[in-house]
Amino acid sequence: MSDVIIEADYLITCNLTNAVIQDGAVYVVDDRIKAIGSRKNIHKDFSANVVIEGLNKILVPGLVNTHSHSVQTLLRGKADDLALIDWLQKIVLPGETSFTTDEVHTSSLLGFAEMIRTGTTTCNDMLTTKYSDYGIQAAIDSGIRTRIGKMLMDVNNGFPDDMIEHTEKIVEDVIKDIGDYHQTQKNRIKYSLNARFLLSCSPQLMKKLSEIQKNYPDIMIHTHASENREECAQVERYYGKSYIRALNELDALGNQTILAHGIWLDDVEYNLIKQTDTRITHNPSSNSKLASGICDVSKYLDMDVIVGLGTDGAPCNNNLDMFREMRLASFLQKVKHLNERVLPSKVVLKMATIEGAKALNLDKEIGSLEIGKKADLFQVDISDVNCIPLYDPISHLVYSASGKDVNMVMVDGKILFKDNQFTIIDLQNLREKATLYQNRWNE
Amino acid sequence: MSDVIIEADYLITCNLTNAVIQDGAVYVVDDRIKAIGSRKNIHKDFSANVVIEGLNKILVPGLVNTHSHSVQTLLRGKADDLALIDWLQKIVLPGETSFTTDEVHTSSLLGFAEMIRTGTTTCNDMLTTKYSDYGIQAAIDSGIRTRIGKMLMDVNNGFPDDMIEHTEKIVEDVIKDIGDYHQTQKNRIKYSLNARFLLSCSPQLMKKLSEIQKNYPDIMIHTHASENREECAQVERYYGKSYIRALNELDALGNQTILAHGIWLDDVEYNLIKQTDTRITHNPSSNSKLASGICDVSKYLDMDVIVGLGTDGAPCNNNLDMFREMRLASFLQKVKHLNERVLPSKVVLKMATIEGAKALNLDKEIGSLEIGKKADLFQVDISDVNCIPLYDPISHLVYSASGKDVNMVMVDGKILFKDNQFTIIDLQNLREKATLYQNRWNE
Repeated sequence: MSDVIIEADYLITCNLTNAVIQDGAVYVVDDRIKAIGSRKNIHKDFSANVVIEGLNKILVPGLVNTHSHSVQTLLRGKADDLALIDWLQKIVLPGETSFTTDEVHTSSLLGFAEMIRTGTTTCNDMLTTKYSDYGIQAAIDSGIRTRIGKMLMDVNNGFPDDMIEHTEKIVEDVIKDIGDYHQTQKNRIKYSLNARFLLSCSPQLMKKLSEIQKNYPDIMIHTHASENREECAQVERYYGKSYIRALNELDALGNQTILAHGIWLDDVEYNLIKQTDTRITHNPSSNSKLASGICDVSKYLDMDVIVGLGTDGAPCNNNLDMFREMRLASFLQKVKHLNERVLPSKVVLKMATIEGAKALNLDKEIGSLEIGKKADLFQVDISDVNCIPLYDPISHLVYSASGKDVNMVMVDGKILFKDNQFTIIDLQNLREKATLYQNRWNE
Repeated sequence: MSDVIIEADYLITCNLTNAVIQDGAVYVVDDRIKAIGSRKNIHKDFSANVVIEGLNKILVPGLVNTHSHSVQTLLRGKADDLALIDWLQKIVLPGETSFTTDEVHTSSLLGFAEMIRTGTTTCNDMLTTKYSDYGIQAAIDSGIRTRIGKMLMDVNNGFPDDMIEHTEKIVEDVIKDIGDYHQTQKNRIKYSLNARFLLSCSPQLMKKLSEIQKNYPDIMIHTHASENREECAQVERYYGKSYIRALNELDALGNQTILAHGIWLDDVEYNLIKQTDTRITHNPSSNSKLASGICDVSKYLDMDVIVGLGTDGAPCNNNLDMFREMRLASFLQKVKHLNERVLPSKVVLKMATIEGAKALNLDKEIGSLEIGKKADLFQVDISDVNCIPLYDPISHLVYSASGKDVNMVMVDGKILFKDNQFTIIDLQNLREKATLYQNRWNE
């Protein structure tokens, strides 16, 4: 048995009561939280082999990134100031397609490293069509918790030929991958059905995925939807109906589907999302940098739709840092509605933790600091100049803190980052490999 | 004579050619840049007492924060999710008014410290009505370059009584302050005429300020304008005309006036700004968090209006970090216009440096790395995981980097921050004083 006590000046539970405990601590045994309380009581009731001290620290449940493309990380900064379809066809898809097996591993590991370094302990990740095993291996190697899977595309709409696969081949691969990876690594890795979007997925494929999903426990469909007006117009031409209506007819909505973006919907479509209990991931940096539009998060929340927060990929962000997404989500919503009261910090922090966990149907295990849940958590240091003064730790996390203030990150009871060092990931090695790739592209 | 060579993997000049020099260096003697070139040539031509090495570093001209309220820093996180007028009347103005002399000094010094730590070397700062000498002293003590002055308010529109002063008293104070502070500290401190906004300044005061400005060299009027629709409506009721028209009739526009925000203008007003060569400071975090609206920066730039970037104060941001403003300025403009090509990284970096310097009429001295200009500059470390890979250092600075990546900051040839330590500012002392204030408020 390995056990540890983690202390903090402020501990934020992010559960229903959303308690802020001053001078708090958690007691972790192996991969689970066994007790939460005041620093004093935890030390009175338990003695642990290891104590992680909490002076000038906030302790928070790990952030849940509900939409990422770890494998695009080597393309960070290669595709700025471009429109979505150009961005995809000219830079991102050719980039993804040209990766070697080792580059897929490097790119994804780099992405997971950045997430971990900035407090993300779980992500919902889309890989490439080719060599996706190497991306899954990167997730296993990094220590992060993830829903993850290969990118599924069987229709060519101006995309690189070698990204497109036959529907039957995709179905075979997916079923093999589910066997190999789903619910492995003590359930830290779950396989995901990552249909890229309706412009690259046939109706046959979408229906097939819906069938597969019903045959296996706890698998979700993860796809992009209604991100960009031009994309929506193309879907309407291709399917003869609007995006969410098309997904509904393909039986692809439901509480085991998560849609990235969800910006350009009409009222019928909002109601389809609500009635089917479909999950939305809001990705504010991506939506801004690609000029897609501002998702009406307030409307979804008023309808009780479950909304998580995501970074999307490095080429459209250009970070994988959920602190940036929290702040921007609140800011965009306030300025969209010209109402400074919408999406206050308490709601945003929940979107980035327990609501993200709900969106991924993982809230029984993660998303809050509660007894019995997984020890997925992190400490934020509050000693730098941006943290002075500090009246409300939740306001601080959302509006003032930086991902760079993250001091310690734990997933499944294992410390993955502490005192500016990764414990498992070899950053120097990653940097060298990334530089090789960078130089090859620049040649 | 003190001299230093500062190296970098990438040196960005931010002047007209906006050159990026790989393996570059600058040679600084006392407070001025004496040479710029390749690392190799600088070392060949000069030998300096001190060499600041540049492995994994970008070297950039210091950022210019064209709108700040350093003195509000002790109120960071006290006024979240409130509308502008409530925010002012309920929290910010009572807060400013209640400060003791020592708290004014602490609050401003904390603000300057955060700016310096994140690469800002010049700011355009508004203090309080009371005890503004202590804020100016904080600027002197911090080492930052600034236009700065007391807050001028002679009209009571629901503001705390003790913030409002008689017009004659204000004019006396201003003239005394100009004598005491203007163009002191080797010209590092310039006095500024900080009329809060038209709802707290009488026409008499505005006209008087315009006269004073014409009688002294190199003094600017700094005021808020057209920030919020409700504020604009109140100005229209009070003055019988719209905001910019009212300022124009008061003879308060011109190339020595800088207006904060400038969001709700009609075409006549845009043209008044252009014709008078009035300067705009865009403050994207503040405009978002206070739900004021998105300033049409693209329109100003298309009209060749000079636009700088500012943080505004900590209670409406909640940071004083220009890296956040650069990224957000680009993002807001792209999503406002649904056009991903507007405000690309090259334009944004210039807004935060040379254009900001132009907005403040300081571009002969600062804003770019050029021979003869002041040695106001900083290094950004590019070894952390968010910096890998790095294809374009300008894209990196605007879209990926964090203010926390700043490694060394120099103003007037003096190092103010290096390797995570302030050289002049005592952060521990500031933290203790801020905590005393925080606890007093919480009592």
